[in-house]
Amino acid sequence: PDAQVEASARKRQSQLTKPPGSLGRLEALAQRLAGLQRRVLPRVDRVQISVFAADHGIADEGVSAFPQAVTAQMIANFAHGGAAISVMAQTLGATLEVIDLGTVVAGPPLPGVRHERIAAGTANFARAPAMTDAQLAQALHRGRAAALRAADAGVELFIGGDMGIANTSSATALACVLLGCAAATLAGPGTGLDAAGVMRKAAVIDAALARHALAPDAPLDALRSVGGFEIAALAASYVACAQRGIAVLVDGFIASAAALAATRLAPGCDAWLFYAHRSAEPGHRVLLEALQAEPLLDLGMRLGEGSGAAVAVPLLRSACALHAQMATFAEAGVADRA
Amino acid sequence: PDAQVEASARKRQSQLTKPPGSLGRLEALAQRLAGLQRRVLPRVDRVQISVFAADHGIADEGVSAFPQAVTAQMIANFAHGGAAISVMAQTLGATLEVIDLGTVVAGPPLPGVRHERIAAGTANFARAPAMTDAQLAQALHRGRAAALRAADAGVELFIGGDMGIANTSSATALACVLLGCAAATLAGPGTGLDAAGVMRKAAVIDAALARHALAPDAPLDALRSVGGFEIAALAASYVACAQRGIAVLVDGFIASAAALAATRLAPGCDAWLFYAHRSAEPGHRVLLEALQAEPLLDLGMRLGEGSGAAVAVPLLRSACALHAQMATFAEAGVADRA
Repeated sequence: PDAQVEASARKRQSQLTKPPGSLGRLEALAQRLAGLQRRVLPRVDRVQISVFAADHGIADEGVSAFPQAVTAQMIANFAHGGAAISVMAQTLGATLEVIDLGTVVAGPPLPGVRHERIAAGTANFARAPAMTDAQLAQALHRGRAAALRAADAGVELFIGGDMGIANTSSATALACVLLGCAAATLAGPGTGLDAAGVMRKAAVIDAALARHALAPDAPLDALRSVGGFEIAALAASYVACAQRGIAVLVDGFIASAAALAATRLAPGCDAWLFYAHRSAEPGHRVLLEALQAEPLLDLGMRLGEGSGAAVAVPLLRSACALHAQMATFAEAGVADRA
Repeated sequence: PDAQVEASARKRQSQLTKPPGSLGRLEALAQRLAGLQRRVLPRVDRVQISVFAADHGIADEGVSAFPQAVTAQMIANFAHGGAAISVMAQTLGATLEVIDLGTVVAGPPLPGVRHERIAAGTANFARAPAMTDAQLAQALHRGRAAALRAADAGVELFIGGDMGIANTSSATALACVLLGCAAATLAGPGTGLDAAGVMRKAAVIDAALARHALAPDAPLDALRSVGGFEIAALAASYVACAQRGIAVLVDGFIASAAALAATRLAPGCDAWLFYAHRSAEPGHRVLLEALQAEPLLDLGMRLGEGSGAAVAVPLLRSACALHAQMATFAEAGVADRA
């Protein structure tokens, strides 16, 4: 971030025809984006949404309300425009790409879908490491590549989405390792478990964590042992966006677990991360607090796909429009304070 | 509201390709709009923003951080596109009209400004009733007329904005009467008073309320005695929107005080009122609780003009787009729950 540009943007805000501070967090958003984009008048017109999809072996433990076949079915739904993130991408005029990192059932070629399959889902981390070292490297590489495509396209905002039945279990396990807490602190209903299901999910995760004995300061080990292909890819995409100077709007629980891993892999990257919303998934509140993040929205969403981040994009656009287009007191001939 | 259409919209939501409830409040927004607009697929494409501007005699008591001349200067700024609400109206593709109900300094004719002046501001309600019966009737009529213009234009969402130096004092006094509380409960910094200024403002309001001795169940008396032309117009516009079946997105502190008056004048109108945001003006939290309103945004905004409501419009549009354009499980060939 460029502190001098951010200071110039702050000065401009103070001259706009409104009481100082009266646009609230929209003022800080515009200023922060200015510093990140190194221009006093930032923009978020060009948005790329990369949805990473993959299956999870942990689904075998009965931790999800939906069957695993849904991951591949939803990839087709993304491509055909029927999923929430497809509708939002069209509404926003954003570029949507779906990256199939490995589903149990391989889908057919589809427009807008990149088939970059690593394996037919991860291994069941209740019994074995979720991935090999080579698979983790591939997942990280594919995430990074998505960010580099965004950079090459001149994108002004990157959103990473996730799709993968049972991935709240993987995200919970990963965050438990990085935060050093028990599964009960973070486990939630995901797509719709009942209370007994949540307790069972937490027990599965705690048993797996005892088996793997991971250290909080080894994020790659944690990603390899209990992560998912899409979660590792998200983490790598965030780090790469920060390295290439692209602001990121982080979605919900899965994306925030990936953001936590990203900030452990590359602590400086947090300056590029904006948090879109507080999910209804109860563990998200804990994750956001650990990330010292104050999300923009709190609408009880819990869908993933990047959908919560997409819904928050107009707030960033409004912040930029107000910052760029409002008149100053001098331009408008309006008296400043008494 | 049409309960049957709302039920049909709820049924459609349950068939869309997402876990039930996972779009959080966006689902309820779409369903409620469906019931109000009497169509399963509601829209908020056509938006009218009517900003009511007027001056307040109570400014003589030193209750504002800005001079009264600013009200008329800001009317010109609205017309020239430099104000926050002008920028947001353009961003949203909304119709913006500004209604001059009476400023201390009369401005020149300007495009987009309706000169419907009642007087050169209200009287100082610390010393006399803010308006006569005839002036109140005019203010209510002008507010109602704005809503009828919206109805005649086929508008799908109405936003009422306010501009008037010292109008937080008038709104505070009005809400204190209607809620039966002391000024300290609701008085805040407005455009930027310091702590001593807020105390002085509360004392001025309490003294005025003691002088007028108003009853909580007489909203017209309260509007006439301590209200403002723009606040009365806002209240009447909300009632008329409800009567004509137009959904309203209520802005911040001033607009919510007007909404409180509207719900006292016509209790059924609250079904048509959506609350956009929680303002940084501290009394707004109290007003929202009294209205049993859960606002969509909480971004620390406190500008008025309808700006907070305008910033929230894309949330309603996203809710409608997702509701209308997402595929059902059957259409997409996606398996429902396990």
